[in-house]
Amino acid sequence: MNCKITGTGSYIPNIITKNADFDKHEFYNTDGTNFPHDNETTIRKFKAITGIEERRYLSENLNTSDIAVLAAQKAIEDAKLDPETLDYIIVAHNYGDVKTGSVQSDTVPSLATRVKSHLRIKNSRCVCYDVLFGCPGWIEGMIHAQAFIKAGMAKKCMVIGAEALSRVIDKHDRDSMIFSDGAGAAILEATEEKGGILAHESATHSFQEAEYIYFGKSNRSEASEDVRYIKMHGRKIYEFALMHVPKAMKSCLDNSGKSINDLKKIFIHQANEKMDQAIIDRFYKLHQTKAPEDVMPMTIHELGNSSVATVPTLFDLVRKGGIKNQKLNKGDVVMFASVGAGMNINAITYQV
Amino acid sequence: MNCKITGTGSYIPNIITKNADFDKHEFYNTDGTNFPHDNETTIRKFKAITGIEERRYLSENLNTSDIAVLAAQKAIEDAKLDPETLDYIIVAHNYGDVKTGSVQSDTVPSLATRVKSHLRIKNSRCVCYDVLFGCPGWIEGMIHAQAFIKAGMAKKCMVIGAEALSRVIDKHDRDSMIFSDGAGAAILEATEEKGGILAHESATHSFQEAEYIYFGKSNRSEASEDVRYIKMHGRKIYEFALMHVPKAMKSCLDNSGKSINDLKKIFIHQANEKMDQAIIDRFYKLHQTKAPEDVMPMTIHELGNSSVATVPTLFDLVRKGGIKNQKLNKGDVVMFASVGAGMNINAITYQV
Repeated sequence: MNCKITGTGSYIPNIITKNADFDKHEFYNTDGTNFPHDNETTIRKFKAITGIEERRYLSENLNTSDIAVLAAQKAIEDAKLDPETLDYIIVAHNYGDVKTGSVQSDTVPSLATRVKSHLRIKNSRCVCYDVLFGCPGWIEGMIHAQAFIKAGMAKKCMVIGAEALSRVIDKHDRDSMIFSDGAGAAILEATEEKGGILAHESATHSFQEAEYIYFGKSNRSEASEDVRYIKMHGRKIYEFALMHVPKAMKSCLDNSGKSINDLKKIFIHQANEKMDQAIIDRFYKLHQTKAPEDVMPMTIHELGNSSVATVPTLFDLVRKGGIKNQKLNKGDVVMFASVGAGMNINAITYQV
Repeated sequence: MNCKITGTGSYIPNIITKNADFDKHEFYNTDGTNFPHDNETTIRKFKAITGIEERRYLSENLNTSDIAVLAAQKAIEDAKLDPETLDYIIVAHNYGDVKTGSVQSDTVPSLATRVKSHLRIKNSRCVCYDVLFGCPGWIEGMIHAQAFIKAGMAKKCMVIGAEALSRVIDKHDRDSMIFSDGAGAAILEATEEKGGILAHESATHSFQEAEYIYFGKSNRSEASEDVRYIKMHGRKIYEFALMHVPKAMKSCLDNSGKSINDLKKIFIHQANEKMDQAIIDRFYKLHQTKAPEDVMPMTIHELGNSSVATVPTLFDLVRKGGIKNQKLNKGDVVMFASVGAGMNINAITYQV
């Protein structure tokens, strides 16, 4: 018995914010000091490292759970699934629903319950919970779904990654330009068909790294200590990711029984273009070879880093021909991989 | 291969708040109107329904993740376990770490990561995530752990329920008297020994019920719309629980192959004494019999409702002889059962 993705969906928010829109922002270092150069330079450097040109934000009236619903509806339609037959709805996020203008995270009831309620699913045996696992939450949710299927507890699971980082960014932090909003969903089903999830890898590095991504005060010295935002130690994360992610990916590929030459695509968390490229390069170097062109579809230039939503959104776009020169064929071996707050790393080797 | 609990631990906070301590509170109805009687009457009625005489609150310097660590340490010690051998740390909660004086939930990194970091566990293959599933979150985490073990993904899992509801209560809401703080933990291990988890049941009722427990504004009319607190529709929950929990428990017992006469103890979520008693009575009525005396150990009188923490705390206390006239013997068949925000219901039939 195998576990295959039978449908995907994503929601890309409407509001486009370009790098130039940050031109008037007052950016400070974490110690409250000014940058030694103007915003134009800051933005140019930012773009060179991250690859991000623009990002998407939710409209004011929407919350994370609302866009989770929109992605879910498309995945259900794509899978031609009767939603009443779902055994699980798993929603990965990190901040819950944060209303426009609020600093509070609303997580009761769970976002998964909200999704089920909006979808008007009646079957009480469709169990809904949220998983908090940093940016790799959607992949981790897929690993949970696979466990439930393998343990005989489920046949059909919907896993959604949804986040609205625009609601938790510090306008005075240059890193705020990285973050964006989005939602992606997939249906994982038990099947006799070959392929599906071939192997997975999952890890939490917290001995030194627990606070590399954290909730902290604004970079603006005068700001209240009581209001906190998403914060990260970018340099440390970069070094950490390069050290550990390629090895985890290699282990995941090795355990699948497939070779590096079988691998057609890598759907990696859209964190930072330079970092993602460096991870892929090192991953191929571990196999004494070079990364093929087009192996790594990217959305970061236009969509930024929407946390748990990047991987399912990227996969959905490629599956449906939404990214130039990127397509999938039946039987293709691909990999999902992510790294984020925890610090958590995971990967799945998957055969389409 | 079976899944058995090899160790438990709990943390009961130090600060005791008695019902009389609410005597000077300004309570309002949800529509902002005053109660037709004085606080003494309100408190007397409250006690008659809920059974709660006092509850425990965290000291100001502690957060939810800190007490999760304290419960975890005791469970690890009790199981005589090398923490480096843990495959999973799963923390169930609903509000994350809410610092004293703050209205923000801090969930990045996950509380499970914080626990692992405090325990100084180095092994990166010990995977840490949080699960949000309302009050039944700890039982649901145990169901996850069982799935990982059955799917061959884990051998040893620690599941913690920790919550500090004192940080999210509305002082102007009578229901605030129900809620308390606490943490409980258990280690679930794969074993060849007989017994352990025999059956489980899990459900989400969200078609009408999603918002029975929610995040809402203070009952005090003048209070800000922007600051929200834990809120519930008590009457609706009571009716819902009576309608659905006994049936779920029956299904869980039936699936275990054990009979009602085998059942020695029921560890039920400490929500409300009258409600818990009514659930148990109806559960036994479904089996054409009466609930035996002492089948339902209770902590609610002194500990209140600490959400995800009630069941593991209660089980830990009984296991270690901490509750008068309550003890467990090897081979005893018991049940864990819970109901809460979602609205979620779950149960586990377990043989000691």
